[in-house]
Amino acid sequence: MNEIHEECGVFGIWSAEKKHIAHICAAGLTALQYRGQEAAGIAVNEDRNIRYHKAQGLVSEVFPADELERMGEGNIAVGHVRYATTGESSALNAQPMVVKHIKGQLALCHNGNLTNSSRLKKELELKGCIFHTTSDTEVISYIITRKRLQKPSIETALEAAMEEIKGAYSLVLMSPAKLMACRDPLGMRPLVYGVTSDGSVVFASESCALDAVGAKLVRDVEPGEIVVCDGEGIRSIRTHCRKQKPKLCIFEYIYFSRPDSVIEGVCVHDTRIKAGEFLAKRHPAKADVVIGVPDSGLDAALGFASESGIPYGIGLIKNKYIGRTFIAPEQSLRESLVRQKMGAIPSVLEGKSVVLVDDSIVRGTTSARIVKMIREAGAREVHMRISSPPFLNPCYYGTDVDSRENLIAVHHTNEEICGMIGADSLGFLSVEDARRLATGVRYRYGHKGCEGSGAEPDNGGCPGGGFRGGIDTEDPESFCAACFDGKYPVGD
Amino acid sequence: MNEIHEECGVFGIWSAEKKHIAHICAAGLTALQYRGQEAAGIAVNEDRNIRYHKAQGLVSEVFPADELERMGEGNIAVGHVRYATTGESSALNAQPMVVKHIKGQLALCHNGNLTNSSRLKKELELKGCIFHTTSDTEVISYIITRKRLQKPSIETALEAAMEEIKGAYSLVLMSPAKLMACRDPLGMRPLVYGVTSDGSVVFASESCALDAVGAKLVRDVEPGEIVVCDGEGIRSIRTHCRKQKPKLCIFEYIYFSRPDSVIEGVCVHDTRIKAGEFLAKRHPAKADVVIGVPDSGLDAALGFASESGIPYGIGLIKNKYIGRTFIAPEQSLRESLVRQKMGAIPSVLEGKSVVLVDDSIVRGTTSARIVKMIREAGAREVHMRISSPPFLNPCYYGTDVDSRENLIAVHHTNEEICGMIGADSLGFLSVEDARRLATGVRYRYGHKGCEGSGAEPDNGGCPGGGFRGGIDTEDPESFCAACFDGKYPVGD
Amino acid sequence: MNEIHEECGVFGIWSAEKKHIAHICAAGLTALQYRGQEAAGIAVNEDRNIRYHKAQGLVSEVFPADELERMGEGNIAVGHVRYATTGESSALNAQPMVVKHIKGQLALCHNGNLTNSSRLKKELELKGCIFHTTSDTEVISYIITRKRLQKPSIETALEAAMEEIKGAYSLVLMSPAKLMACRDPLGMRPLVYGVTSDGSVVFASESCALDAVGAKLVRDVEPGEIVVCDGEGIRSIRTHCRKQKPKLCIFEYIYFSRPDSVIEGVCVHDTRIKAGEFLAKRHPAKADVVIGVPDSGLDAALGFASESGIPYGIGLIKNKYIGRTFIAPEQSLRESLVRQKMGAIPSVLEGKSVVLVDDSIVRGTTSARIVKMIREAGAREVHMRISSPPFLNPCYYGTDVDSRENLIAVHHTNEEICGMIGADSLGFLSVEDARRLATGVRYRYGHKGCEGSGAEPDNGGCPGGGFRGGIDTEDPESFCAACFDGKYPVGD
Amino acid sequence: MNEIHEECGVFGIWSAEKKHIAHICAAGLTALQYRGQEAAGIAVNEDRNIRYHKAQGLVSEVFPADELERMGEGNIAVGHVRYATTGESSALNAQPMVVKHIKGQLALCHNGNLTNSSRLKKELELKGCIFHTTSDTEVISYIITRKRLQKPSIETALEAAMEEIKGAYSLVLMSPAKLMACRDPLGMRPLVYGVTSDGSVVFASESCALDAVGAKLVRDVEPGEIVVCDGEGIRSIRTHCRKQKPKLCIFEYIYFSRPDSVIEGVCVHDTRIKAGEFLAKRHPAKADVVIGVPDSGLDAALGFASESGIPYGIGLIKNKYIGRTFIAPEQSLRESLVRQKMGAIPSVLEGKSVVLVDDSIVRGTTSARIVKMIREAGAREVHMRISSPPFLNPCYYGTDVDSRENLIAVHHTNEEICGMIGADSLGFLSVEDARRLATGVRYRYGHKGCEGSGAEPDNGGCPGGGFRGGIDTEDPESFCAACFDGKYPVGD
Repeated sequence: MNEIHEECGVFGIWSAEKKHIAHICAAGLTALQYRGQEAAGIAVNEDRNIRYHKAQGLVSEVFPADELERMGEGNIAVGHVRYATTGESSALNAQPMVVKHIKGQLALCHNGNLTNSSRLKKELELKGCIFHTTSDTEVISYIITRKRLQKPSIETALEAAMEEIKGAYSLVLMSPAKLMACRDPLGMRPLVYGVTSDGSVVFASESCALDAVGAKLVRDVEPGEIVVCDGEGIRSIRTHCRKQKPKLCIFEYIYFSRPDSVIEGVCVHDTRIKAGEFLAKRHPAKADVVIGVPDSGLDAALGFASESGIPYGIGLIKNKYIGRTFIAPEQSLRESLVRQKMGAIPSVLEGKSVVLVDDSIVRGTTSARIVKMIREAGAREVHMRISSPPFLNPCYYGTDVDSRENLIAVHHTNEEICGMIGADSLGFLSVEDARRLATGVRYRYGHKGCEGSGAEPDNGGCPGGGFRGGIDTEDPESFCAACFDGKYPVGD
Repeated sequence: MNEIHEECGVFGIWSAEKKHIAHICAAGLTALQYRGQEAAGIAVNEDRNIRYHKAQGLVSEVFPADELERMGEGNIAVGHVRYATTGESSALNAQPMVVKHIKGQLALCHNGNLTNSSRLKKELELKGCIFHTTSDTEVISYIITRKRLQKPSIETALEAAMEEIKGAYSLVLMSPAKLMACRDPLGMRPLVYGVTSDGSVVFASESCALDAVGAKLVRDVEPGEIVVCDGEGIRSIRTHCRKQKPKLCIFEYIYFSRPDSVIEGVCVHDTRIKAGEFLAKRHPAKADVVIGVPDSGLDAALGFASESGIPYGIGLIKNKYIGRTFIAPEQSLRESLVRQKMGAIPSVLEGKSVVLVDDSIVRGTTSARIVKMIREAGAREVHMRISSPPFLNPCYYGTDVDSRENLIAVHHTNEEICGMIGADSLGFLSVEDARRLATGVRYRYGHKGCEGSGAEPDNGGCPGGGFRGGIDTEDPESFCAACFDGKYPVGD
Repeated sequence: MNEIHEECGVFGIWSAEKKHIAHICAAGLTALQYRGQEAAGIAVNEDRNIRYHKAQGLVSEVFPADELERMGEGNIAVGHVRYATTGESSALNAQPMVVKHIKGQLALCHNGNLTNSSRLKKELELKGCIFHTTSDTEVISYIITRKRLQKPSIETALEAAMEEIKGAYSLVLMSPAKLMACRDPLGMRPLVYGVTSDGSVVFASESCALDAVGAKLVRDVEPGEIVVCDGEGIRSIRTHCRKQKPKLCIFEYIYFSRPDSVIEGVCVHDTRIKAGEFLAKRHPAKADVVIGVPDSGLDAALGFASESGIPYGIGLIKNKYIGRTFIAPEQSLRESLVRQKMGAIPSVLEGKSVVLVDDSIVRGTTSARIVKMIREAGAREVHMRISSPPFLNPCYYGTDVDSRENLIAVHHTNEEICGMIGADSLGFLSVEDARRLATGVRYRYGHKGCEGSGAEPDNGGCPGGGFRGGIDTEDPESFCAACFDGKYPVGD
Repeated sequence: MNEIHEECGVFGIWSAEKKHIAHICAAGLTALQYRGQEAAGIAVNEDRNIRYHKAQGLVSEVFPADELERMGEGNIAVGHVRYATTGESSALNAQPMVVKHIKGQLALCHNGNLTNSSRLKKELELKGCIFHTTSDTEVISYIITRKRLQKPSIETALEAAMEEIKGAYSLVLMSPAKLMACRDPLGMRPLVYGVTSDGSVVFASESCALDAVGAKLVRDVEPGEIVVCDGEGIRSIRTHCRKQKPKLCIFEYIYFSRPDSVIEGVCVHDTRIKAGEFLAKRHPAKADVVIGVPDSGLDAALGFASESGIPYGIGLIKNKYIGRTFIAPEQSLRESLVRQKMGAIPSVLEGKSVVLVDDSIVRGTTSARIVKMIREAGAREVHMRISSPPFLNPCYYGTDVDSRENLIAVHHTNEEICGMIGADSLGFLSVEDARRLATGVRYRYGHKGCEGSGAEPDNGGCPGGGFRGGIDTEDPESFCAACFDGKYPVGD
């Protein structure tokens, strides 16, 4: 029952022939919807002319059938889902950001967060730039389009812009003639590409979006890589690649990404199973049943169960129809809030010692309510296991990990937290284990050979023999875990 | 991935003191939302004056914060969620149905379906009655209010009305001064009641709605029983009780009800675990992993796994953000439809022999698409197991089991269906096993003693020593399984 | 700037061939929109099957293009616009009321108000009838459909029903095969019929709606007359005709009807011109200019000007974009409320003695604000002339004349009111003159001969030589002026 | 029944104390609504922090009560109504445009059209500027904010910007601390300012908006003048004043502005009366009655009547409930389209020779339909008089006069047009008369002395003795009539 939010999901598609490309984009974005539910947008390129629509709401709300129809046909499209940070400017900050510059239009979708945007913004303003939004994306738009004044192409402008922008960014961009994608040199946010059976090229934050549109995963965009796709084919710019050790956000494996996504060749589901196994080893418990808090605690619960030999059970049911929770004027309702979101199955819990696995503890309030509900359903003991380390630091790279004052682990010991949430015991995943979640997994996507085929960027080919992602997931240092250990990889 | 729909959920609450009762009603209805997603309505009784609002949409859509606020305070309320059967009249047929008759107002919520409504309607029309809707509920309103002309109270009018109406019905009714609930003599649809810590009495289709509003389950309303609640306390009318063998809809256990609900003392989850166990015994398979189709196949998959010893796995992920599916103009999208709804986890499936457990097969199309997806994720073998018997007959008691021509099992053998869905083997639950799903379950709700307390209807007290539901769930004949075996318990 | 509201407008059309009849109905209702702005509805009959849609809002809001499209084709349709009286039940009480009875469906649109509906309702409830709405229309539905049990046809049932219902009613009804219209024996509310060039028959509250759909006015439906239109042609039932002296609501001429409508052969505009002339004779004033309060005071101002010889001027401009007025938190805005609705033209008013003509004074507040605005624009003197008599009594026949306690004229003399509104002099139309507004008008619609043609009801033909309406507009006793003089024509 | 649209209305208010300023702004914009109905927006300045909301729709739709509430309090606000030119970008181009630059925020409202915006845009793009919209307003934002880098204040930046931008512009701007208004050196679009009794300063496109918020008109902003209002008081910058002969758009008097507005001391209503008088002199007619096409032809009709001595009549009634016209599938409805918008009063027209006064003829189609309706209501003769000259040229200064190919007068002689619209005679206002509409009017606003008071800009005081507007309305050369005579005052 995680309360940390990713801020965005990005999607892009290039097709040799004109089609109802907004429909495909919407399907891809719906697969990425859990990465951002506040706003959605799609831009379609028809004969070098870019049309777009974006608004607050879920993809299905922003793009009902008639709106998709209005988007018409095209052969390139980009789309975005957004978890808005704050207040009034959210509608405004919806993406794609579409701007007109001296060379034409540019549509830009961004997942991540720049660390030097304040400085860049000030420099730009001093040069007479004006800003319509408060988003980093507008800063990026300026940097790229201003570089374009000196550079011969949009992709070389992007290459130059990457010299200036710092922080986490996975971008999908569309110019009148090209679809591009790039990932920051540290590869902090995921970005993959795939191809469909009819040769369309698809970029997405996660591979689950490729599956949703019938595309096959080719590989991850490499940290620092720019992939360009146009009538001439698909090609890579690798100037910014492999100059730094990558720092993929470890929380993508732990929570953000969908379990059926494959990131850097590793199935997200497997890393969560592994988290459960680590927990079972480090924090064993005598119990009758292991249950997970749906949906994000289920994988780790299964891992805990298989490692410990304690039976896996389904003890909590999530009510998927819960909308925005009522600001209930009745005290009784406020108290039963967590019961409106989830139901406990008494037959599984009554009289049992229960291992309860959840993905994280932020403020502790929700955990306390769940433990209480489990006990009221008759559980004798509740052993809480958390498949992530305690949050100790804010994130500057595009997630909304709270400020330190609200993080329970900053102010309390493990024992105190255990008491506060009312559990009989409490165990967190260690940071060391977190860094090893993708280590030694038996299954590796694409291990039978390169899936890339002819659509593979020509200058980045697949050297054969197994999946070649840009990140060595066996290396614990390949990950950013700053929210847990404070080691921030990028400065301002 | 069931495609059979329940048509309704009902909820009612009586409180000694005036409060924001519509908020509580909305919380209860949200817990019952999966029983009907097309329309929702709430009627509130404030000082004998009934106000109501109903419309098409989810509870959260029909009752946003300001609408709930407008409903004001009251001390009785009833509510309804509806799965509309067809077309244009759906908004009209939303409930509660609120009518004015000679003795005042009556608000009525109905789950079920009458079998003699056409005849009753005609008789009423011959007496000069007019109908605004096409729903049974209006027929019931007429029968009750016309009986009220001869009877001294609304509850005795209801008692008399029950002589005339045939079929399945669980009703929650509100008059200016009373809250009532009744269940047809066969008890075909579930109906429970509970109490809150402050003494409010709550009726609901299922106990999960009691949990959601912080009420404790007392017991099921007995088949044929009328429970009346007003300033005088709570009391029962049992004239229609125990004259016939009950016939609870077996599909409530198999699919309709929420796993965390307790029906007739039996946890719904347990019956589905048992369905999986039956399947493992009758239709074993050599396999590496057992996975369930989310959400409704998960329990049975866990039962199959535990009985067979084959490991339970999580192999499919449901996308909860799928709205109404796009009528996709692109062929590729239409083909990937099931992939937009669910994602397959390759690491769990690749190279494996998989037991795939789902709750039902209606037309077979969806099953074929899921099997295909499982295979494309790399599964070597797919053994399909269905936790219900084949559908062979339409339902006349309030669910939308399709007409015979669309039921795949009417026209095809087990082998043919197996081939059509592309599975390596296929096994259905037998009707006999279906009738025994609630047999011999170790856990019985309230087994420690009667939970009833003072709120228990005075003339229906709890004889002590264990839960006293009206239905003997150990008896295979206590259930209606007409959609499977054609034995219809009620005629016209 | 009248604040009295008519409660309804009705429309019906019968066409030999199937067409997009809802569009025509919507056009007709839009012409009648000023008679009711709260709710709108249309029912379409396609092959004896009645479909309908109704909701709160203007015709253009309730029936956007796609909604009209959804209504499909048909060959009969009825429609209604409503000014809702009070509160929550307004959506519910929208019309047409469509009910099913033993002989099929009936769709009913009603303009007026029954005076014996409480008694009828009670009698019906005693016979076991239930009511879904609080409107008279449901009572009428019952009476007609219950008569239908004994009578051979819907029109004879209607004929019999008219024996029982008392009060003001102009009805347009649709059965599976017929379109009918009838008017109460006193003819209190207007109702006309016309034909289109392709032979369609159209009924409407006012002739302006015929013009809007390209139909030609044939004549008024006679007080007490039933006109029936079906495949057999058009025919009249006159059982209830000419048994009582008609009592047409005089306020239809004074305010409710549109100036371009012709009622009983008299142009509404002409009666208002006449009102102005009467005022000029009875209450002359020395002034520089005569201006009317837009829109409803303009005609009478023109009449006053021509009779008095004082120049007519345009001194006030209405802002047609005023929606619902802001509940303004700023005092300054509340004070300028009338200035938001209307603007004064300084060049017409500055330094002038002004005759200001309005249609009525209800509470006096608005008049006071307008007079103040005229003075602030520089007027030297303001002589207020009101083209209706003072309101002294409530109306029970379908308009919302306020209860006596709110009517300024009940509590104050002419002189007091003049002081309260800040005018230099004040003159009301006398009741005697009001009853003579349609007397002696030079122009009479259809005076050249009967317009009826073949579409004229066979048993009600046109005796030749001029328009034959059912009401002698030359007779001052042909009108109801109860709100002015308290002579109520119909009891309970 | 004019079909030429103004593109915008602007409004701004500065108050010493914080108040619900958005409500006032909305009231002012509603008064200006007829200048633009497609989009509306308001920006509020609360403690130097600018909040805004804008969307497509009428003011009352974009700003319902709760939206105004959300705008909160503030002491400066600016607002805009817009008639969108074309298609998809309309929502985007809504104003105020609010941008952030190096010195803070700037909110900008613009009425008019630049003639050199393409060139400016290209130059800006070459300097690395990006554009989010297609509107001139964004160009103006850039020019001002870039000047601000060199200039000591926002008003001096605006002063410098006015050197570069060419064309028609009336601007209202808000910085964190100041409210400003300016008018292009030719004064092509109107702009006035006024004060309220509590000392608030108000700017608006027309004085009718001052009236609506209870403000008193001080005077017009002078062509080329910048008026600045902040805590220090109100002051003028007149660098760009009186260097060129002003060229006020003559169509503001003829059609755009509201009749109750005072522009350059002349009441708009008076100029239209005069247009009617000119027509009566140049194109007399023998007729029984003079009627105007509502609403914009009424004033001129009254002028024609008084000059000719032919009685003024009300012969056409506008239906104010007409929304967007139905795209009617029925031929009969399409033919009666104009009848849905307007009704003809038969008693006024039958057998009469009618002078019909309208404000303009663009394509001729509407005029033809109206003439036909007048004839069908029985008119014997129809003499059409048009209170503007024939349109012969497109407008580049902010109105949507059609391209030449659609202007009927470009292709046809007066006689041909008369035949095409089916009139018996036709007369247009001459260009010479059009230029003299504000000449010699007896009434001059503020003629008794300067209304300015202390709120008057300190360096622009009122030299006493009558209203001092910046434009000599007695001089026929003070106006732009390019759409009639092709003399375009400003180049690119």
